Amino acid sequence: MNGKLYLIPSPLGEYAPSEVLPAPVLDIISSLGCFVVEEVRTARRFLSAAGLRGRVGELEFHTLNEHTSPQEVEAMAGLFEGRDVGLISEAGLPAVADPGAALAALCHRIGVEVVPLVGPSSLMLALMASGLDGQSFAFRGYLPAKTEERRAAIRELEKQSKALHQSQIVIETPYRNDALFADFLKYLQNGTRLCVAADLTLPTAFVRTMEAGLWRKAPVTIGKRPCVFIVLS
Amino acid sequence: MNGKLYLIPSPLGEYAPSEVLPAPVLDIISSLGCFVVEEVRTARRFLSAAGLRGRVGELEFHTLNEHTSPQEVEAMAGLFEGRDVGLISEAGLPAVADPGAALAALCHRIGVEVVPLVGPSSLMLALMASGLDGQSFAFRGYLPAKTEERRAAIRELEKQSKALHQSQIVIETPYRNDALFADFLKYLQNGTRLCVAADLTLPTAFVRTMEAGLWRKAPVTIGKRPCVFIVLS
Repeated sequence: MNGKLYLIPSPLGEYAPSEVLPAPVLDIISSLGCFVVEEVRTARRFLSAAGLRGRVGELEFHTLNEHTSPQEVEAMAGLFEGRDVGLISEAGLPAVADPGAALAALCHRIGVEVVPLVGPSSLMLALMASGLDGQSFAFRGYLPAKTEERRAAIRELEKQSKALHQSQIVIETPYRNDALFADFLKYLQNGTRLCVAADLTLPTAFVRTMEAGLWRKAPVTIGKRPCVFIVLS
Repeated sequence: MNGKLYLIPSPLGEYAPSEVLPAPVLDIISSLGCFVVEEVRTARRFLSAAGLRGRVGELEFHTLNEHTSPQEVEAMAGLFEGRDVGLISEAGLPAVADPGAALAALCHRIGVEVVPLVGPSSLMLALMASGLDGQSFAFRGYLPAKTEERRAAIRELEKQSKALHQSQIVIETPYRNDALFADFLKYLQNGTRLCVAADLTLPTAFVRTMEAGLWRKAPVTIGKRPCVFIVLS
Protein backbone atom coordinates (compact mmCIF):
# COMPACT_ATOMS: atom_id res chain seq x y z
CA MET A 1 0.00 0.00 0.00
CA ASN A 2 1.50 3.28 -1.13
CA GLY A 3 1.52 6.44 1.00
CA LYS A 4 0.90 9.96 -0.27
CA LEU A 5 3.19 12.84 -1.13
CA TYR A 6 2.34 15.96 0.89
CA LEU A 7 3.60 19.23 -0.60
CA ILE A 8 4.47 21.35 2.43
CA PRO A 9 4.89 25.13 2.07
CA SER A 10 7.36 26.91 4.36
CA PRO A 11 7.70 30.50 5.63
CA LEU A 12 9.20 33.22 3.43
CA GLY A 13 11.34 34.56 6.30
CA GLU A 14 12.56 34.02 9.83
CA TYR A 15 9.30 33.60 11.72
CA ALA A 16 7.17 30.81 13.18
CA PRO A 17 5.55 28.44 10.64
CA SER A 18 2.23 28.90 12.49
CA GLU A 19 2.25 32.53 11.26
CA VAL A 20 1.60 31.38 7.68
CA LEU A 21 0.40 27.77 7.83
CA PRO A 22 -3.19 26.72 8.72
CA ALA A 23 -3.58 24.45 11.76
CA PRO A 24 -4.43 21.27 9.75
CA VAL A 25 -1.20 21.71 7.74
CA LEU A 26 0.80 21.85 10.99
CA ASP A 27 -0.99 18.65 12.10
CA ILE A 28 -0.05 16.84 8.89
CA ILE A 29 3.59 17.93 9.25
CA SER A 30 3.66 16.54 12.79
CA SER A 31 2.30 13.19 11.59
CA LEU A 32 5.13 12.57 9.09
CA GLY A 33 8.46 10.81 9.61
CA CYS A 34 10.04 11.00 6.16
CA PHE A 35 10.87 14.18 4.24
CA VAL A 36 12.37 15.05 0.87
CA VAL A 37 14.01 18.47 1.19
CA GLU A 38 16.17 20.92 -0.70
CA GLU A 39 18.59 21.37 2.19
CA VAL A 40 18.53 19.25 5.36
CA ARG A 41 19.78 21.96 7.70
CA THR A 42 17.02 24.45 6.77
CA ALA A 43 14.38 21.72 6.80
CA ARG A 44 15.39 20.56 10.30
CA ARG A 45 15.07 24.11 11.58
CA PHE A 46 11.65 24.52 9.92
CA LEU A 47 10.30 21.19 11.18
CA SER A 48 11.55 21.87 14.68
CA ALA A 49 9.70 25.21 14.68
CA ALA A 50 6.63 23.57 13.09
CA GLY A 51 6.05 21.29 16.07
CA LEU A 52 8.54 18.43 15.63
CA ARG A 53 11.08 19.70 18.15
CA GLY A 54 12.40 16.73 20.10
CA ARG A 55 11.57 14.34 17.24
CA VAL A 56 13.79 15.93 14.58
CA GLY A 57 16.62 13.48 15.38
CA GLU A 58 14.40 10.50 14.48
CA LEU A 59 13.22 11.85 11.12
CA GLU A 60 14.38 10.47 7.79
CA PHE A 61 15.65 13.05 5.27
CA HIS A 62 16.36 12.73 1.58
CA THR A 63 17.83 15.55 -0.47
CA LEU A 64 16.35 16.72 -3.76
CA ASN A 65 18.05 19.77 -5.23
CA GLU A 66 19.69 20.92 -8.47
CA HIS A 67 22.45 18.30 -7.98
CA THR A 68 20.04 15.34 -7.78
CA SER A 69 20.11 13.14 -10.90
CA PRO A 70 16.95 11.79 -12.59
CA GLN A 71 18.03 8.26 -11.49
CA GLU A 72 18.21 9.38 -7.87
CA VAL A 73 14.71 10.89 -8.13
CA GLU A 74 13.46 7.63 -9.68
CA ALA A 75 14.86 5.68 -6.72
CA MET A 76 12.67 7.74 -4.37
CA ALA A 77 9.68 5.66 -5.53
CA GLY A 78 10.63 3.23 -2.72
CA LEU A 79 10.06 5.86 -0.04
CA PHE A 80 6.28 5.61 -0.36
CA GLU A 81 6.01 1.96 0.64
CA GLY A 82 3.61 1.93 3.53
CA ARG A 83 4.00 5.55 4.55
CA ASP A 84 3.41 9.19 3.64
CA VAL A 85 6.25 11.52 2.64
CA GLY A 86 6.55 15.32 2.90
CA LEU A 87 8.23 17.54 0.31
CA ILE A 88 9.69 20.86 1.52
CA SER A 89 11.49 23.55 -0.47
CA GLU A 90 13.78 26.27 0.86
CA ALA A 91 11.00 28.87 1.11
CA GLY A 92 7.40 29.07 0.01
CA LEU A 93 5.65 26.49 -2.16
CA PRO A 94 7.47 23.27 -3.06
CA ALA A 95 7.48 22.11 -6.70
CA VAL A 96 6.92 25.64 -8.04
CA ALA A 97 10.17 26.96 -9.54
CA ASP A 98 12.24 24.36 -7.65
CA PRO A 99 13.55 20.84 -8.34
CA GLY A 100 10.79 19.23 -6.23
CA ALA A 101 8.51 19.16 -9.30
CA ALA A 102 10.44 16.06 -10.44
CA LEU A 103 9.24 14.14 -7.37
CA ALA A 104 5.61 15.17 -7.92
CA ALA A 105 5.97 14.08 -11.57
CA LEU A 106 7.34 10.70 -10.44
CA CYS A 107 4.36 10.25 -8.13
CA HIS A 108 1.95 10.79 -11.03
CA ARG A 109 3.81 8.13 -13.06
CA ILE A 110 3.79 5.52 -10.27
CA GLY A 111 0.28 6.27 -8.99
CA VAL A 112 1.15 7.93 -5.67
CA GLU A 113 -1.41 10.53 -4.62
CA VAL A 114 -0.04 14.10 -4.48
CA VAL A 115 -1.63 16.39 -1.88
CA PRO A 116 -0.81 20.13 -2.13
CA LEU A 117 -1.11 22.04 1.16
CA VAL A 118 -1.98 25.71 1.66
CA GLY A 119 0.80 28.16 2.47
CA PRO A 120 2.56 31.34 1.38
CA SER A 121 3.28 31.95 -2.31
CA SER A 122 5.37 35.08 -2.80
CA LEU A 123 4.22 35.23 -6.43
CA MET A 124 0.50 35.20 -5.60
CA LEU A 125 0.88 37.54 -2.62
CA ALA A 126 2.68 40.00 -4.91
CA LEU A 127 0.09 39.63 -7.67
CA MET A 128 -2.86 40.13 -5.27
CA ALA A 129 -1.28 43.19 -3.72
CA SER A 130 -0.09 44.74 -6.97
CA GLY A 131 -3.53 45.84 -8.13
CA LEU A 132 -2.44 44.71 -11.61
CA ASP A 133 -4.54 42.44 -13.73
CA GLY A 134 -4.70 38.95 -12.27
CA GLN A 135 -7.01 37.74 -15.06
CA SER A 136 -3.97 36.89 -17.14
CA PHE A 137 -0.41 36.61 -15.92
CA ALA A 138 2.86 34.81 -16.55
CA PHE A 139 5.73 33.89 -14.27
CA ARG A 140 9.03 34.29 -16.13
CA GLY A 141 11.54 33.36 -13.43
CA TYR A 142 14.86 35.23 -13.70
CA LEU A 143 15.85 37.63 -16.46
CA PRO A 144 19.31 37.27 -18.03
CA ALA A 145 22.12 39.00 -16.10
CA LYS A 146 24.13 40.39 -19.03
CA THR A 147 23.33 43.99 -19.99
CA GLU A 148 22.45 43.50 -23.64
CA GLU A 149 20.40 40.34 -23.11
CA ARG A 150 18.64 41.87 -20.15
CA ARG A 151 17.66 44.97 -22.06
CA ALA A 152 16.25 42.80 -24.82
CA ALA A 153 14.42 40.64 -22.23
CA ILE A 154 12.81 43.68 -20.59
CA ARG A 155 11.67 45.05 -23.97
CA GLU A 156 10.30 41.61 -24.88
CA LEU A 157 8.49 41.37 -21.51
CA GLU A 158 6.85 44.72 -22.13
CA LYS A 159 5.88 43.73 -25.66
CA GLN A 160 4.35 40.41 -24.56
CA SER A 161 2.53 42.12 -21.72
CA LYS A 162 0.95 44.57 -24.13
CA ALA A 163 0.13 42.00 -26.83
CA LEU A 164 -1.51 39.52 -24.44
CA HIS A 165 -2.62 42.03 -21.77
CA GLN A 166 -0.66 39.77 -19.42
CA SER A 167 1.01 40.77 -16.14
CA GLN A 168 4.63 39.57 -16.23
CA ILE A 169 6.07 38.30 -12.93
CA VAL A 170 9.84 38.20 -12.46
CA ILE A 171 12.12 37.36 -9.54
CA GLU A 172 15.77 38.18 -8.90
CA THR A 173 18.63 37.04 -6.68
CA PRO A 174 18.33 39.45 -3.71
CA TYR A 175 21.74 41.05 -4.10
CA ARG A 176 20.82 42.02 -7.66
CA ASN A 177 17.38 43.52 -6.84
CA ASP A 178 18.49 47.12 -7.11
CA ALA A 179 20.33 46.54 -10.38
CA LEU A 180 17.19 44.97 -11.91
CA PHE A 181 15.02 47.79 -10.57
CA ALA A 182 17.40 50.34 -12.13
CA ASP A 183 17.23 48.49 -15.44
CA PHE A 184 13.43 48.50 -15.36
CA LEU A 185 13.47 52.27 -14.82
CA LYS A 186 15.99 52.62 -17.64
CA TYR A 187 14.21 50.56 -20.26
CA LEU A 188 10.45 50.51 -19.51
CA GLN A 189 8.19 53.02 -21.23
CA ASN A 190 6.74 55.81 -19.06
CA GLY A 191 3.21 54.43 -18.99
CA THR A 192 4.14 50.82 -18.15
CA ARG A 193 3.14 49.84 -14.64
CA LEU A 194 5.75 48.26 -12.37
CA CYS A 195 5.04 46.62 -9.01
CA VAL A 196 7.84 46.13 -6.47
CA ALA A 197 6.87 43.67 -3.71
CA ALA A 198 9.54 42.98 -1.08
CA ASP A 199 9.59 41.11 2.24
CA LEU A 200 6.08 39.74 1.79
CA THR A 201 4.53 38.25 4.98
CA LEU A 202 7.19 40.09 7.02
CA PRO A 203 6.62 43.15 9.25
CA THR A 204 8.91 45.05 6.85
CA ALA A 205 6.78 44.20 3.79
CA PHE A 206 6.80 46.78 1.01
CA VAL A 207 4.44 46.74 -2.00
CA ARG A 208 4.14 49.64 -4.42
CA THR A 209 2.79 49.85 -7.97
CA MET A 210 3.43 52.91 -10.13
CA GLU A 211 3.99 53.77 -13.77
CA ALA A 212 7.66 53.63 -14.74
CA GLY A 213 7.60 57.38 -15.41
CA LEU A 214 6.55 58.05 -11.80
CA TRP A 215 9.03 55.54 -10.37
CA ARG A 216 11.80 57.44 -12.11
CA LYS A 217 10.87 60.55 -10.13
CA ALA A 218 10.68 58.67 -6.81
CA PRO A 219 12.83 55.53 -6.92
CA VAL A 220 13.38 53.35 -3.83
CA THR A 221 16.23 51.23 -2.51
CA ILE A 222 15.10 47.62 -2.21
CA GLY A 223 18.28 46.14 -0.75
CA LYS A 224 18.87 42.41 -0.33
CA ARG A 225 15.28 41.54 0.58
CA PRO A 226 13.34 38.80 -1.20
CA CYS A 227 11.48 40.68 -3.93
CA VAL A 228 8.97 40.03 -6.70
CA PHE A 229 8.62 42.39 -9.68
CA ILE A 230 5.52 42.63 -11.88
CA VAL A 231 5.27 44.49 -15.17
CA LEU A 232 2.03 45.37 -16.99
CA SER A 233 2.12 47.41 -20.16
CA MET B 1 -4.68 58.90 9.05
CA ASN B 2 -5.45 56.24 6.44
CA GLY B 3 -6.05 52.59 7.28
CA LYS B 4 -4.79 49.62 5.30
CA LEU B 5 -6.43 47.32 2.79
CA TYR B 6 -6.20 43.67 3.86
CA LEU B 7 -6.60 41.13 1.06
CA ILE B 8 -8.41 38.21 2.70
CA PRO B 9 -8.42 34.78 1.04
CA SER B 10 -11.45 32.54 1.54
CA PRO B 11 -12.01 28.75 1.39
CA LEU B 12 -12.40 26.96 -1.95
CA GLY B 13 -15.36 24.92 -0.68
CA GLU B 14 -17.85 24.39 2.12
CA TYR B 15 -15.57 23.97 5.11
CA ALA B 16 -14.33 26.01 8.07
CA PRO B 17 -12.03 28.98 7.22
CA SER B 18 -9.63 27.74 9.93
CA GLU B 19 -8.93 24.72 7.70
CA VAL B 20 -7.08 26.87 5.19
CA LEU B 21 -6.26 30.18 6.91
CA PRO B 22 -3.33 30.66 9.35
CA ALA B 23 -4.25 31.81 12.87
CA PRO B 24 -2.92 35.40 12.44
CA VAL B 25 -5.13 35.84 9.36
CA LEU B 26 -8.19 34.81 11.39
CA ASP B 27 -7.13 37.36 14.04
CA ILE B 28 -6.92 40.15 11.46
CA ILE B 29 -10.35 39.24 10.07
CA SER B 30 -11.83 39.43 13.57
CA SER B 31 -10.34 42.89 14.08
CA LEU B 32 -12.06 44.46 11.05
CA GLY B 33 -15.44 46.17 10.82
CA CYS B 34 -15.60 47.18 7.13
CA PHE B 35 -15.46 44.85 4.16
CA VAL B 36 -15.53 45.17 0.39
CA VAL B 37 -16.95 41.95 -1.03
CA GLU B 38 -18.10 40.36 -4.27
CA GLU B 39 -21.39 39.18 -2.79
CA VAL B 40 -22.66 40.17 0.66
CA ARG B 41 -24.50 36.93 1.39
CA THR B 42 -21.46 34.68 0.82
CA ALA B 43 -19.20 37.10 2.68
CA ARG B 44 -21.51 37.14 5.73
CA ARG B 45 -21.45 33.36 5.86
CA PHE B 46 -17.66 33.29 5.54
CA LEU B 47 -17.09 35.97 8.20
CA SER B 48 -19.50 34.28 10.57
CA ALA B 49 -17.58 31.01 10.22
CA ALA B 50 -14.24 32.87 10.49
CA GLY B 51 -14.97 34.06 14.02
CA LEU B 52 -17.29 37.05 13.61
CA ARG B 53 -20.50 35.20 14.44
CA GLY B 54 -22.65 37.50 16.60
CA ARG B 55 -20.95 40.60 15.18
CA VAL B 56 -21.91 40.09 11.53
CA GLY B 57 -24.98 42.33 11.94
CA GLU B 58 -22.79 45.29 12.93
CA LEU B 59 -20.36 45.00 10.02
CA GLU B 60 -20.26 47.44 7.11
CA PHE B 61 -20.34 45.89 3.64
CA HIS B 62 -19.63 47.41 0.24
CA THR B 63 -20.03 45.49 -2.98
CA LEU B 64 -17.36 45.32 -5.67
CA ASN B 65 -18.18 43.00 -8.56
CA GLU B 66 -18.44 43.06 -12.36
CA HIS B 67 -21.35 45.55 -12.13
CA THR B 68 -19.37 48.14 -10.12
CA SER B 69 -18.41 51.22 -12.16
CA PRO B 70 -14.94 52.83 -12.03
CA GLN B 71 -16.57 55.87 -10.36
CA GLU B 72 -18.01 53.68 -7.62
CA VAL B 73 -14.58 52.11 -7.01
CA GLU B 74 -13.04 55.61 -6.88
CA ALA B 75 -15.58 56.61 -4.20
CA MET B 76 -14.30 53.76 -1.98
CA ALA B 77 -11.24 55.92 -1.22
CA GLY B 78 -13.29 57.39 1.63
CA LEU B 79 -13.61 54.01 3.37
CA PHE B 80 -10.02 54.11 4.58
CA GLU B 81 -10.36 57.23 6.70
CA GLY B 82 -9.21 56.19 10.14
CA ARG B 83 -9.75 52.46 9.74
CA ASP B 84 -8.63 49.27 8.01
CA VAL B 85 -10.74 47.56 5.34
CA GLY B 86 -10.88 43.90 4.25
CA LEU B 87 -11.33 42.73 0.66
CA ILE B 88 -12.92 39.31 0.11
CA SER B 89 -13.67 37.49 -3.14
CA GLU B 90 -16.13 34.65 -3.71
CA ALA B 91 -13.48 31.94 -3.26
CA GLY B 92 -9.72 31.87 -2.96
CA LEU B 93 -7.45 34.89 -3.37
CA PRO B 94 -9.03 38.33 -3.82
CA ALA B 95 -7.73 40.58 -6.62
CA VAL B 96 -6.50 37.64 -8.69
CA ALA B 97 -8.84 37.04 -11.62
CA ASP B 98 -11.62 39.05 -9.95
CA PRO B 99 -12.82 42.69 -9.92
CA GLY B 100 -11.14 43.37 -6.54
CA ALA B 101 -7.91 44.28 -8.33
CA ALA B 102 -9.45 47.69 -9.07
CA LEU B 103 -9.61 48.46 -5.33
CA ALA B 104 -5.98 47.42 -4.78
CA ALA B 105 -5.02 49.64 -7.75
CA LEU B 106 -6.92 52.57 -6.22
CA CYS B 107 -5.05 52.06 -2.94
CA HIS B 108 -1.71 52.33 -4.74
CA ARG B 109 -2.82 55.59 -6.35
CA ILE B 110 -4.01 57.20 -3.10
CA GLY B 111 -1.21 55.85 -0.91
CA VAL B 112 -3.15 53.28 1.14
CA GLU B 113 -1.01 50.31 2.20
CA VAL B 114 -2.11 46.99 0.68
CA VAL B 115 -1.47 43.89 2.80
CA PRO B 116 -1.89 40.49 1.09
CA LEU B 117 -2.73 37.61 3.48
CA VAL B 118 -1.87 33.93 3.08
CA GLY B 119 -4.60 31.53 1.96
CA PRO B 120 -5.62 28.98 -0.65
CA SER B 121 -4.86 29.62 -4.33
CA SER B 122 -6.41 26.94 -6.52
CA LEU B 123 -3.99 27.88 -9.33
CA MET B 124 -0.87 27.41 -7.20
CA LEU B 125 -2.18 24.27 -5.48
CA ALA B 126 -2.83 22.77 -8.92
CA LEU B 127 0.57 23.84 -10.24
CA MET B 128 2.44 22.43 -7.21
CA ALA B 129 0.59 19.14 -7.39
CA SER B 130 0.81 18.79 -11.18
CA GLY B 131 4.50 17.88 -11.25
CA LEU B 132 4.73 20.12 -14.32
CA ASP B 133 7.31 22.81 -14.69
CA GLY B 134 6.70 25.64 -12.25
CA GLN B 135 9.80 27.52 -13.44
CA SER B 136 7.70 29.18 -16.11
CA PHE B 137 3.92 29.30 -16.30
CA ALA B 138 1.03 31.40 -17.50
CA PHE B 139 -2.54 31.74 -16.30
CA ARG B 140 -4.87 32.16 -19.28
CA GLY B 141 -8.25 32.33 -17.58
CA TYR B 142 -11.10 30.85 -19.63
CA LEU B 143 -10.85 29.52 -23.19
CA PRO B 144 -13.47 30.58 -25.75
CA ALA B 145 -16.68 28.50 -25.64
CA LYS B 146 -17.35 28.24 -29.39
CA THR B 147 -16.03 25.07 -31.06
CA GLU B 148 -13.87 26.64 -33.77
CA GLU B 149 -12.38 29.34 -31.54
CA ARG B 150 -11.76 26.84 -28.79
CA ARG B 151 -9.93 24.46 -31.07
CA ALA B 152 -7.73 27.31 -32.26
CA ALA B 153 -7.15 28.41 -28.65
CA ILE B 154 -6.08 24.91 -27.56
CA ARG B 155 -3.69 24.62 -30.50
CA GLU B 156 -2.29 28.07 -29.70
CA LEU B 157 -1.90 27.12 -26.02
CA GLU B 158 0.06 24.03 -27.00
CA LYS B 159 2.23 26.03 -29.40
CA GLN B 160 3.02 28.73 -26.82
CA SER B 161 3.73 26.10 -24.20
CA LYS B 162 6.27 24.44 -26.47
CA ALA B 163 7.87 27.67 -27.71
CA LEU B 164 8.32 29.16 -24.22
CA HIS B 165 8.51 25.87 -22.27
CA GLN B 166 5.68 27.40 -20.27
CA SER B 167 2.97 25.53 -18.33
CA GLN B 168 -0.41 26.91 -19.39
CA ILE B 169 -3.07 27.15 -16.66
CA VAL B 170 -6.74 27.34 -17.62
CA ILE B 171 -10.01 27.34 -15.67
CA GLU B 172 -13.57 26.59 -16.74
CA THR B 173 -17.11 27.15 -15.51
CA PRO B 174 -17.80 23.91 -13.56
CA TYR B 175 -20.70 22.72 -15.70
CA ARG B 176 -18.43 22.87 -18.77
CA ASN B 177 -15.48 20.98 -17.23
CA ASP B 178 -16.16 17.72 -19.01
CA ALA B 179 -16.68 19.43 -22.38
CA LEU B 180 -13.32 21.21 -22.03
CA PHE B 181 -11.63 17.99 -20.93
CA ALA B 182 -13.08 16.20 -23.99
CA ASP B 183 -11.80 18.99 -26.25
CA PHE B 184 -8.31 18.72 -24.74
CA LEU B 185 -8.30 14.99 -25.48
CA LYS B 186 -9.57 15.70 -29.00
CA TYR B 187 -7.07 18.37 -29.96
CA LEU B 188 -3.89 17.96 -27.87
CA GLN B 189 -0.99 15.98 -29.32
CA ASN B 190 -0.30 12.56 -27.78
CA GLY B 191 2.87 13.64 -25.97
CA THR B 192 1.47 16.83 -24.44
CA ARG B 193 1.01 16.58 -20.69
CA LEU B 194 -2.35 17.54 -19.19
CA CYS B 195 -3.05 17.97 -15.48
CA VAL B 196 -6.62 17.81 -14.15
CA ALA B 197 -6.91 19.20 -10.61
CA ALA B 198 -10.42 19.19 -9.10
CA ASP B 199 -11.81 19.89 -5.63
CA LEU B 200 -8.48 21.13 -4.28
CA THR B 201 -8.34 21.43 -0.46
CA LEU B 202 -11.44 19.19 -0.25
CA PRO B 203 -11.55 15.56 0.94
CA THR B 204 -12.66 14.67 -2.60
CA ALA B 205 -9.59 16.30 -4.20
CA PHE B 206 -8.40 14.74 -7.44
CA VAL B 207 -5.11 15.59 -9.16
CA ARG B 208 -3.72 13.60 -12.08
CA THR B 209 -1.15 14.44 -14.74
CA MET B 210 -0.72 12.26 -17.84
CA GLU B 211 0.15 12.63 -21.49
CA ALA B 212 -2.89 13.32 -23.67
CA GLY B 213 -2.35 9.96 -25.40
CA LEU B 214 -2.68 8.13 -22.08
CA TRP B 215 -5.67 10.20 -20.96
CA ARG B 216 -7.48 9.10 -24.12
CA LYS B 217 -7.13 5.48 -23.03
CA ALA B 218 -8.32 6.20 -19.47
CA PRO B 219 -10.47 9.35 -19.38
CA VAL B 220 -12.25 10.47 -16.21
CA THR B 221 -15.51 12.24 -15.45
CA ILE B 222 -14.82 15.51 -13.64
CA GLY B 223 -18.41 16.64 -13.09
CA LYS B 224 -19.34 20.06 -11.74
CA ARG B 225 -16.45 20.37 -9.33
CA PRO B 226 -14.15 23.42 -9.30
CA CYS B 227 -11.30 22.38 -11.58
CA VAL B 228 -7.98 23.72 -12.86
CA PHE B 229 -6.39 22.42 -16.07
CA ILE B 230 -2.69 22.69 -16.89
CA VAL B 231 -1.09 21.96 -20.27
CA LEU B 232 2.63 21.50 -20.91
CA SER B 233 3.88 20.56 -24.35
